Amino acid sequence: MEGLWLFSVALSAAGAIGFICIILVLRWVLYFRKGLAWDGGAAEFNWHPVLIVTGFIFLQGIAIIVYRLPWTWQCSKKMMKFIHAALNLVAFIFAVISMVAVFDFHNAANIPNMYSLHSWLVPTSAFYLSFNEQLVLGVGIYLIPATPVSWRAAFMPLHVYSGLLLFTSVIAVALMGITEKLIFALDNPKYKDSPPEAILVNALGVLLVLFGLTNKANATFNAINNRVNEEKHVFVFRNVV
Amino acid sequence: MEGLWLFSVALSAAGAIGFICIILVLRWVLYFRKGLAWDGGAAEFNWHPVLIVTGFIFLQGIAIIVYRLPWTWQCSKKMMKFIHAALNLVAFIFAVISMVAVFDFHNAANIPNMYSLHSWLVPTSAFYLSFNEQLVLGVGIYLIPATPVSWRAAFMPLHVYSGLLLFTSVIAVALMGITEKLIFALDNPKYKDSPPEAILVNALGVLLVLFGLTNKANATFNAINNRVNEEKHVFVFRNVV
Repeated sequence: MEGLWLFSVALSAAGAIGFICIILVLRWVLYFRKGLAWDGGAAEFNWHPVLIVTGFIFLQGIAIIVYRLPWTWQCSKKMMKFIHAALNLVAFIFAVISMVAVFDFHNAANIPNMYSLHSWLVPTSAFYLSFNEQLVLGVGIYLIPATPVSWRAAFMPLHVYSGLLLFTSVIAVALMGITEKLIFALDNPKYKDSPPEAILVNALGVLLVLFGLTNKANATFNAINNRVNEEKHVFVFRNVV
Repeated sequence: MEGLWLFSVALSAAGAIGFICIILVLRWVLYFRKGLAWDGGAAEFNWHPVLIVTGFIFLQGIAIIVYRLPWTWQCSKKMMKFIHAALNLVAFIFAVISMVAVFDFHNAANIPNMYSLHSWLVPTSAFYLSFNEQLVLGVGIYLIPATPVSWRAAFMPLHVYSGLLLFTSVIAVALMGITEKLIFALDNPKYKDSPPEAILVNALGVLLVLFGLTNKANATFNAINNRVNEEKHVFVFRNVV
């Protein structure tokens, strides 16, 4: 029960930090930038940070730990799988829309696409490959009933490793994006003069790191607990089949 | 033996990628920027990326996997500990000097210190805390003979987790630094026009990610192998005591 109490605290912390991140990114674009629109201008670009933070970071983070919540261990296995898959699918759709927003904004403003390291990391690193591997193989292996149980068990360590790697990568790449945007957008006063917008968005960056840390700890340490507690075999079986 | 062969390939890949990263960062500062000096100018700043890549990323990466190399399992345990500690100590010293270089450069050019998200993440995130925890508790628990063996065993999962977290964080923060520097330094042509320097340094960033991935895979997957192979108890004992 001690482990459960600690896990509940860490889970509440991750949830609270995640909500604050969403509030801060909305405050950033609605109060300091030009709000949200779909007109090829700066307000269209603003969908990019909003959708990445709410979808690709927050929803993906929830999807990662949804299996770890002890009070779901008695739920239908199929329902838990669909919740995990659905959250990841929504996160993926948000990410795609957020990228369309950037391309639209760049094209309308005659800014070249895909020149920065931030953008290079999307298609070239394991980041993108992981998501494809997670999405295509994850659905193929865990949602298609015909797939042999032995395949599901063999693929599980890679699925968990890749999922956590992707989650970490998304946060790292988001921090690069925040850095870029603050340098480009802040002009008078500049980023180096630390205006209120810079402080707010730096704080958002720090909180995204804390969300990643607490959420990953929930995923990792609870998995460690599971390995040593009495429910080990039930849990492993439920996660694989 | 299959595992060993795969590990050797991954290890060679990590080593080769690491060396290419060092060559690229030297090429960047010596050819595209104003070289290396200790004069408060741009050439002093250049020590920052050089020392972070060679020390805080490459040497720390080697320090992480030095215990995992199967051919060291027969070496003196004490010697392996000192190699691990010495590599991390050199990495830490390089990191400190690299930060002094930035403060010197900022102060000479009247640029404010610690305003960017890149700099905020150093003291506020688990990044810095991890290094202190690793350095102080790592030395206290593993290098002082009087520490009880049970403490060493209990602290090991946290030591490994924090070490890998720190290694990942350093690479993520380095990518933010690269992004900042390219935007600030490239003026005519600008970063968005993708001049040769931008391509070179973007490639450096991608290779740093690949170094992190291959090196972390060496640390993690070999650890998984160790858990299931016959040398499990010998290995665990050697790592703890």
